[in-house]
Amino acid sequence: MAEAFPDVTQIRFEGPGTKNPLAFRHYNPDEVVAGMTMADHLRFSVAFWHTFRGTGADQFGVGTMVRPWDDGTQSIENAQRRVRAAFEFFEKLGVKFWTFHDRDLAPEGETLAETNRNLDAVVAVAKEEQARTGIQLLWGTACLFSNPRYMHGASTSCNADAFAYAAAQVKKAIEVTHELGGLGYTFWGGREGYTTLLNTDMGRELDHLAKFLHMAVDFKKEIGFTGQFYIEPKPMEPTKHQYDSDAAACVAFLQKYGLMGELKLNLETNHATLAGHTMEHELETAIHFGVFGSVDANAGDVMLGWDTDQFPTDIYLTTNVMLRIMKAGGLAPGGLNFDAHVRRESFEPIDLFHAHVGGMDAFARGLKIAAKLREDRALDDFIAQRYGSWDTGIGAKIEAGKVGFKELEAYMLEKGEIAPNASGRQEMLENILNDYIA
Amino acid sequence: MAEAFPDVTQIRFEGPGTKNPLAFRHYNPDEVVAGMTMADHLRFSVAFWHTFRGTGADQFGVGTMVRPWDDGTQSIENAQRRVRAAFEFFEKLGVKFWTFHDRDLAPEGETLAETNRNLDAVVAVAKEEQARTGIQLLWGTACLFSNPRYMHGASTSCNADAFAYAAAQVKKAIEVTHELGGLGYTFWGGREGYTTLLNTDMGRELDHLAKFLHMAVDFKKEIGFTGQFYIEPKPMEPTKHQYDSDAAACVAFLQKYGLMGELKLNLETNHATLAGHTMEHELETAIHFGVFGSVDANAGDVMLGWDTDQFPTDIYLTTNVMLRIMKAGGLAPGGLNFDAHVRRESFEPIDLFHAHVGGMDAFARGLKIAAKLREDRALDDFIAQRYGSWDTGIGAKIEAGKVGFKELEAYMLEKGEIAPNASGRQEMLENILNDYIA
Amino acid sequence: MAEAFPDVTQIRFEGPGTKNPLAFRHYNPDEVVAGMTMADHLRFSVAFWHTFRGTGADQFGVGTMVRPWDDGTQSIENAQRRVRAAFEFFEKLGVKFWTFHDRDLAPEGETLAETNRNLDAVVAVAKEEQARTGIQLLWGTACLFSNPRYMHGASTSCNADAFAYAAAQVKKAIEVTHELGGLGYTFWGGREGYTTLLNTDMGRELDHLAKFLHMAVDFKKEIGFTGQFYIEPKPMEPTKHQYDSDAAACVAFLQKYGLMGELKLNLETNHATLAGHTMEHELETAIHFGVFGSVDANAGDVMLGWDTDQFPTDIYLTTNVMLRIMKAGGLAPGGLNFDAHVRRESFEPIDLFHAHVGGMDAFARGLKIAAKLREDRALDDFIAQRYGSWDTGIGAKIEAGKVGFKELEAYMLEKGEIAPNASGRQEMLENILNDYIA
Amino acid sequence: MAEAFPDVTQIRFEGPGTKNPLAFRHYNPDEVVAGMTMADHLRFSVAFWHTFRGTGADQFGVGTMVRPWDDGTQSIENAQRRVRAAFEFFEKLGVKFWTFHDRDLAPEGETLAETNRNLDAVVAVAKEEQARTGIQLLWGTACLFSNPRYMHGASTSCNADAFAYAAAQVKKAIEVTHELGGLGYTFWGGREGYTTLLNTDMGRELDHLAKFLHMAVDFKKEIGFTGQFYIEPKPMEPTKHQYDSDAAACVAFLQKYGLMGELKLNLETNHATLAGHTMEHELETAIHFGVFGSVDANAGDVMLGWDTDQFPTDIYLTTNVMLRIMKAGGLAPGGLNFDAHVRRESFEPIDLFHAHVGGMDAFARGLKIAAKLREDRALDDFIAQRYGSWDTGIGAKIEAGKVGFKELEAYMLEKGEIAPNASGRQEMLENILNDYIA
Repeated sequence: MAEAFPDVTQIRFEGPGTKNPLAFRHYNPDEVVAGMTMADHLRFSVAFWHTFRGTGADQFGVGTMVRPWDDGTQSIENAQRRVRAAFEFFEKLGVKFWTFHDRDLAPEGETLAETNRNLDAVVAVAKEEQARTGIQLLWGTACLFSNPRYMHGASTSCNADAFAYAAAQVKKAIEVTHELGGLGYTFWGGREGYTTLLNTDMGRELDHLAKFLHMAVDFKKEIGFTGQFYIEPKPMEPTKHQYDSDAAACVAFLQKYGLMGELKLNLETNHATLAGHTMEHELETAIHFGVFGSVDANAGDVMLGWDTDQFPTDIYLTTNVMLRIMKAGGLAPGGLNFDAHVRRESFEPIDLFHAHVGGMDAFARGLKIAAKLREDRALDDFIAQRYGSWDTGIGAKIEAGKVGFKELEAYMLEKGEIAPNASGRQEMLENILNDYIA
Repeated sequence: MAEAFPDVTQIRFEGPGTKNPLAFRHYNPDEVVAGMTMADHLRFSVAFWHTFRGTGADQFGVGTMVRPWDDGTQSIENAQRRVRAAFEFFEKLGVKFWTFHDRDLAPEGETLAETNRNLDAVVAVAKEEQARTGIQLLWGTACLFSNPRYMHGASTSCNADAFAYAAAQVKKAIEVTHELGGLGYTFWGGREGYTTLLNTDMGRELDHLAKFLHMAVDFKKEIGFTGQFYIEPKPMEPTKHQYDSDAAACVAFLQKYGLMGELKLNLETNHATLAGHTMEHELETAIHFGVFGSVDANAGDVMLGWDTDQFPTDIYLTTNVMLRIMKAGGLAPGGLNFDAHVRRESFEPIDLFHAHVGGMDAFARGLKIAAKLREDRALDDFIAQRYGSWDTGIGAKIEAGKVGFKELEAYMLEKGEIAPNASGRQEMLENILNDYIA
Repeated sequence: MAEAFPDVTQIRFEGPGTKNPLAFRHYNPDEVVAGMTMADHLRFSVAFWHTFRGTGADQFGVGTMVRPWDDGTQSIENAQRRVRAAFEFFEKLGVKFWTFHDRDLAPEGETLAETNRNLDAVVAVAKEEQARTGIQLLWGTACLFSNPRYMHGASTSCNADAFAYAAAQVKKAIEVTHELGGLGYTFWGGREGYTTLLNTDMGRELDHLAKFLHMAVDFKKEIGFTGQFYIEPKPMEPTKHQYDSDAAACVAFLQKYGLMGELKLNLETNHATLAGHTMEHELETAIHFGVFGSVDANAGDVMLGWDTDQFPTDIYLTTNVMLRIMKAGGLAPGGLNFDAHVRRESFEPIDLFHAHVGGMDAFARGLKIAAKLREDRALDDFIAQRYGSWDTGIGAKIEAGKVGFKELEAYMLEKGEIAPNASGRQEMLENILNDYIA
Repeated sequence: MAEAFPDVTQIRFEGPGTKNPLAFRHYNPDEVVAGMTMADHLRFSVAFWHTFRGTGADQFGVGTMVRPWDDGTQSIENAQRRVRAAFEFFEKLGVKFWTFHDRDLAPEGETLAETNRNLDAVVAVAKEEQARTGIQLLWGTACLFSNPRYMHGASTSCNADAFAYAAAQVKKAIEVTHELGGLGYTFWGGREGYTTLLNTDMGRELDHLAKFLHMAVDFKKEIGFTGQFYIEPKPMEPTKHQYDSDAAACVAFLQKYGLMGELKLNLETNHATLAGHTMEHELETAIHFGVFGSVDANAGDVMLGWDTDQFPTDIYLTTNVMLRIMKAGGLAPGGLNFDAHVRRESFEPIDLFHAHVGGMDAFARGLKIAAKLREDRALDDFIAQRYGSWDTGIGAKIEAGKVGFKELEAYMLEKGEIAPNASGRQEMLENILNDYIA
């Protein structure tokens, strides 16, 4: 097969001074930051679906993308060619991970059996390419939302057969993920939610969702797949109300149904903001509840009300994300998966490189800034000192469980009023952060 | 004391044909609907803070409310007079419940001890009025957000003394609630959240919040207070991110910290919509997780991004709320508490009556419509039939836990494709709902 | 051709008591309300694109709609068959108007010339059907957003050829609209806006947009087309910032470029709410600036951030819309065009009837309620009295232009303080509105 | 009077390497950038109302701010002391401009006459301080929203007396602005809007608003005040719908009422985002329509739905704003007015310095970045080339008005299809922007 990107050679680190748009200014994979290489910190991954199956179609227009290696057919050969083009892209970009949806990888057949054979034929090529390049599968997933059979949901469909089909499909997707040595498997509940309560039995649907995940956990153990399972929260789109709306909703669900410990969260910036949260809030929440897993690295447009899946270029965002990832002790076995697509007007193959290079550089800057902030304890010392009253005296007693309401009332009746508060210094801290943004 | 509302007599049910704006067209307390009186279904409650302490001040202007019984001073006498005016209002309106914030009831003193004495002096009048009128306290609560001492939070403050003060304050508030025979006690985390993560240790704050609630539970049991504890979810305002952001966030928290069973949720429409959810979604969620408690009956303006706390007049809303309340088996020991205030331009005392009468009538209509929908099974039969595939065959096996991924794959490989889906009929169902809106 | 909807007969008015879901409970076309038949008040129109070309595809899944008369090909015969199916639908539904997009009516060919011939072939059938049924074309329009040639806009493209192509396309669309006796022509600026200012010359693009509309006006006059031109405001989607974002933005543009008097506005509820306005605000604005034209009758989901184009069933909405339409003196030559589509899960042909019947009934109720409110002057008298101070004294002098700042200062220095304000009575007025909601 | 800020000396430029939080890292007033000093480019102004009258009160709590120079009384002496403290602040900060609201400067009296005398007494001190320091008044304004007399609006009140009072108040405010040598005067329509159309005659209110502004223009000319008049757009808050909702709404209004040329716009970031626009969109709009005037330099929190008036620290924002200001040819006679307040928890006087220093540095960085982008034509060349098709051939003919629909149809029928589009390159451009963010 001819090269898919003949005009692009290996993207290299050339440093901030370069004028070459297709070079890294900041991402230097082997450079050690805070005791680990940038590659190990960042664990970049490319999403096959957006980058190799995205057409640029939207609700108001057909596809625009020019993809010379893709003949537009649903043939296996075309699907295989796409995979080879993808690995050429991964290699030239210099990422070590990729992710896929089953149905984006290989076309559906007339029956499930045929569909599974199609998938196997394309997975074989992916396996070959992985072996050739050393690139690993960060996680696999199954598309349980595009086919009309899932119009009412998959595991939460009112149609029990849809659940059964989804089960069969996810079984296969886990198997091929296992076959490809995948480090994880992600559940994004595409149509697991509802459009109107007028026709919905929400409680029954949630019970079914839990049943489905338990089956998946059982199956994983049975076949010895040790990859991490992830749930990906998102609040709306396509259904009006997605069940896994945000990190807290996932945690509430996992706890109720005895699934804590089995699944972690794959968090995405654009999903966080659609839920009315910052990405750092979602990360903090996941860390606090012990379910931080992996990151879908993109950005939304907060002036727009839907998932725009843009490439992340805001350094404040990447810094904030990296601060939490470092606090969590790193990403592995998760990664930074670019669940992002080029704009419909950026239709040329080269735009795929511009987009990913820019996203990787933005995260490399975020990493360096976060590492410096941590090294200098530029924020940490302030926070530690701010909560100092909890380390001794009444605060320590409260934390130790030595006092209750009665003792605290007695303490305060005697004292009459609290010790003075100190300024929160938000403006000063924002200025300090700006000192590090470079 | 002279009457506070000399121009208003007892509000009575006059039926839909009346031209009297200060009469009920729909709320007929003793009328039996679905086997219970409307009064018992609806359990209306007036919020003392909005109706007797709301001034009409907003961020752009000072108060406008004309309240002849209130001399504007911080005296105990004035506070007591307000309580008597309030009970006159409750009586003339014909509600059976009220709710209060401690600091709105009585003024703060120089010390906690003095403040507690102030509170006792006003509670004594409330107790007298309760005895005189038979009106009950739906729930009490403490204001842990207005005083600068709580600028950084109360139980989640970085200042341990603020936690201690809040503990003392809540202890007292629970005591007076108990003293007044209150049916419940509500925790709204006024400033329990954060403005910026640059200065915040979220995990430590959440641990403190849990500690605080455990102390409250312990204290409640110690004094034999059997009222229901509620958490009131709200996503933002005043802090950028409130910890109890929505029903799911509360459930995640309660489960993690071993508090399920001790606290239920007091849900509010305007808080739900600020969190990006419909009120019916929040109600369904609470019911499903077993934490449905009580309702703050108001409405927001979904075109505006803050808590407008308007009186509920949309019959679709009241119908949807009543459908869930009836599904949950009723409100008791909770109620429909009008956590709503008149607009700043509705500054006359009479506007308080217009507002509450309209809200009560809107809920009475919602109740009658919901009861009719349930009686006719106008939606229930459709839903039951829609999930019919789960009652037999493969669906029943899945629900019974008799099959896993392997069995389902075998089932589907043989079948090849799923049984056809049926239309969701959303438009038809919306039309049916409209047939009942009357 | 066989009937497209063999199971549906003419939808008839059966009154509120009927159990027949496919009958009108409220819309009785010949019933006279406020001196005019309901048909003349409401001027319902069906949008060909949604109802006959909508597939149910969304960003997350392929089409679901079952349309037996449509063989899925791009043939002229299929296009013609769709038109015949559409007129059968219009007839059975009992609407008197329809609207179309050129490219939804007929397929594109290899060249513009071929495309125009395709369009002519389908228009011929539409003309036949119009003659057969008496159904009129409310307005036509051109699809300047789906084809990749318009990725950067049509008249506002950075590519001058795209402008030229759009001009040729709109010329043809106006011609066929004229040929079909259309009462109007609508400009919705599908991709007339921008995604990022980093690559955009907004001023130059706006100049081009104005140039385009002037050419259209010139052409219209040249060919003697006397239909009304409309601009349809919408704030976002598909571009991040649409130039015609709301009524005010359109007015600002029309005024600057000397186009007032040539174009009016076609307002849509879902577009209004996406712009942060209520539909009634947009209607009032258009009326005030003299550009009220026609209405796209739908509803959005205010909890969602995109154009959901749902059928309107909220009686408060339809009442508010009808109040403004009656205030404006009626819709003609505009209409109530159902720019709405059934949900993706409502995939059966019969759902098209449920949806339109419900929308028509909801507007019929809105009309009757609005007419009663106006007849009783239930709101008008309050408003007139509220502004009474402007009818005499200083108010009248101000309106008459007889006083300026100096005279008003003198007046107020003498008076010292203003005459007392009266309550805005919003709650009472909302209750009054509810008295009419039936 | 003792120093208000005894612990702060003159804030100086110390460059990026400094560890001193109260020094400029980037703002070096006399440094020449793009041919002009930074001071002349940026024209920073402090808003008296936020910085010297802001208390930290919000809807959920009382004030928190510690202001040792302010005794909390409504006395003239206190008001005068505040002005002296303010000028000490302005001087130490090194800004050359300030802005005020009349009622924040001086207390209201019992009558308008007394109020005017109060204002004169405080203005006298401001005049003295201006003379002493050389600091100028960027613009003055009148508070027409706080007093209950304006509950229904000022010039758009239903009460004609409120209009008259507002006229008298604005007359005086313009006079004292003139007296202080103010460079401009701003109209922010605090309560010029409506809460519900149920009680509102919008058309009549807009006519009154126009009448009011015409009176102001007439008066300005009469007294020879040559300062620039500004309208400040804002979409909501305090009324549900503010008439001056965004730049386009203001332009539509100014054009209709013959006020173009008399008023320009004072744009604010937080108001732009509340209206669903980016600040750069509002700036571009104002520039295009010829009404760009001045800038209120703040930032909102796009996750929150109200005006948070935060200090601007995002370098992307300041860069984008400075790009437009430079495109417009600079700010004069307008300025960058910090219409921003410290967070409620940042209650110490020193926080005022942290906040302003950070905002000034952020804008200085934005200026330097914007200047470099312009010097390198890093974006401009791309844009110019992108629109190249308009400079010759059919594009040039269209711009020159030499062709209409018929000629364009002929051109395109011959050509058949358009010349290819080029990629919009959004991702590459975002990367280029990031190269300059330093």
